[in-house]
Amino acid sequence: MYSAGDVRVEDRDDPRIIEPTDAIIRLTATCVCGSDLWPYRGVEPADHQVMGHEYVGVVEEIGADVKNVKVGDFVVGSFVISDNTCEICRAGFQSKCVHAEFVAQIGTQAEKARIPYADGTLVATPGHPGPELIPSLLAASDVLGTGWFAAVAAQAGPGKTVAVVGDGAVGLMAVLAAKQLGADRIIAMSRHPERQALARYYGATDIVEERGDAGVAKIKELTNGLGAHSVVEAVGTQESFMQAVGATRGGGHLGYVGVNYDVTIPGIELFFAGIHTLGGPAPVRRFLPDLIDLIWRREIDPGRVFDLTLPLEEAAEAYRAMDERRATKVLLTL
Amino acid sequence: MYSAGDVRVEDRDDPRIIEPTDAIIRLTATCVCGSDLWPYRGVEPADHQVMGHEYVGVVEEIGADVKNVKVGDFVVGSFVISDNTCEICRAGFQSKCVHAEFVAQIGTQAEKARIPYADGTLVATPGHPGPELIPSLLAASDVLGTGWFAAVAAQAGPGKTVAVVGDGAVGLMAVLAAKQLGADRIIAMSRHPERQALARYYGATDIVEERGDAGVAKIKELTNGLGAHSVVEAVGTQESFMQAVGATRGGGHLGYVGVNYDVTIPGIELFFAGIHTLGGPAPVRRFLPDLIDLIWRREIDPGRVFDLTLPLEEAAEAYRAMDERRATKVLLTL
Repeated sequence: MYSAGDVRVEDRDDPRIIEPTDAIIRLTATCVCGSDLWPYRGVEPADHQVMGHEYVGVVEEIGADVKNVKVGDFVVGSFVISDNTCEICRAGFQSKCVHAEFVAQIGTQAEKARIPYADGTLVATPGHPGPELIPSLLAASDVLGTGWFAAVAAQAGPGKTVAVVGDGAVGLMAVLAAKQLGADRIIAMSRHPERQALARYYGATDIVEERGDAGVAKIKELTNGLGAHSVVEAVGTQESFMQAVGATRGGGHLGYVGVNYDVTIPGIELFFAGIHTLGGPAPVRRFLPDLIDLIWRREIDPGRVFDLTLPLEEAAEAYRAMDERRATKVLLTL
Repeated sequence: MYSAGDVRVEDRDDPRIIEPTDAIIRLTATCVCGSDLWPYRGVEPADHQVMGHEYVGVVEEIGADVKNVKVGDFVVGSFVISDNTCEICRAGFQSKCVHAEFVAQIGTQAEKARIPYADGTLVATPGHPGPELIPSLLAASDVLGTGWFAAVAAQAGPGKTVAVVGDGAVGLMAVLAAKQLGADRIIAMSRHPERQALARYYGATDIVEERGDAGVAKIKELTNGLGAHSVVEAVGTQESFMQAVGATRGGGHLGYVGVNYDVTIPGIELFFAGIHTLGGPAPVRRFLPDLIDLIWRREIDPGRVFDLTLPLEEAAEAYRAMDERRATKVLLTL
């Protein structure tokens, strides 16, 4: 991305092993993330930077210390590098690993990528997947893992009413996760008919089209005046964050997985809400083995969140399609 | 409180039963809360209002529907009214009860008070306490219950390092709670020698005098660079809140029990911290039976947090002493 709105596909040098814990992967597929739109839209700086942090592919080379994946393995990795052995990783917060590094700095909208701490970051699938599984495995790398974490952070589960703010890919994946986690009722907040349909496909029991205070009022109306037990915030704006706070009942749980730079939370409002919150870059690595297993057994179908597929060379059009909301999420083939 | 800084003790009409769920109590003791200093200092409005929300006393009269306490019982009550039967109360968040009302609106810096939802708000002690137990039972009404909630919210417990930001009464009670909950290490952030001593008495293993970024750096230094597992925020300013966020390790837990009106939390900082938070007015009622039991059996001695005792008539001096930090917390006798 040369600058906001200016995405180009160029030849670059092949990545090489630098540390003995590195692996080089040849990507099978990658994609554009909702968060890639922040620099694209000028909300965050963009200056001749590599892009992309979601990836599946085949291991082409490994460093001397890599033991958990081998050349030829098909792998899925998290969008945050982790050693998966430090105290923070062992507590399940691999995205805050002492060796954490954002894959976005490496850039996986590319043919190949160098993945540091390959043993702790990559998970091999049981075999080479058929093409029909590629979109779902790719989704696990971020949007599924992130939506899943959001639902876990919101403590979605049996007996719970879950409200999901945001009908982008992550919000839809949070709906899927809430369903898998056994939530009684899943309210998707969406005003787009095709996304409402996908939300229902993934398990939403109710749709709320209202936003802001009206959205909060509607959630309260649906929950006996109390608010939802579990709320997922998957938009990241000031309005959506405060909508999520307002929709959570006292003592309830809010999981949030993205906020943009201008969100400021009035302390007193959060205080009087009396809620649990958990947010941050999702520790996708924690969930990857289970998510790969669910996908491999065809129990979940997160790949449907991709509604446009383009070759990597057409990355610029992929960004445009998402920016203009012509696509929810674009898969890039190699 | 007529206006900021102007506290007067006046004769008023005796309270009377209004609802059949009310009780009238004759107070044995009451006190001044750190939060009473916000209006006293003009940070919150003050306009000819009653004051006080902490109380112990004897039930003098009950409404027709009151069943759990009877005339003559010695009772301790929470600083928030709760029915203790609604769905929110049953989930342990009595401070967000559908019938919640702040006792501060009733004013317990008084000889008598009408307590709504007496069955859900008041807890009778096993008998009439001796005078030596009065300070501890009074502490249970707010500062102990609030500090205890903060420690629970921060998930203080075995194997955990707990950092407590704030050496006021609530912070000291959070130290006591963390100790009771079995925390391995308790770091009190305090620069006042006499409060440091009390923190050590209640169970602090380490004292950190630094504040702000320097305080965060010191906590990291003491925790292998990771931050504390559990952090209690018991001050309520912008600096102390962000200090608490920064002191919490990724995936750790922050419990906060008071923020003033001008605190604004940068969403992006909270996001990248990757932490759990739980805050709000403490659901003291959840903990009252256990706290009364611990006090009755002399297992805890929270009453030491009172370092000045005055008759109610000298309430104005009590406020002055706390405002000028000549006293941590003032007990008012009747």
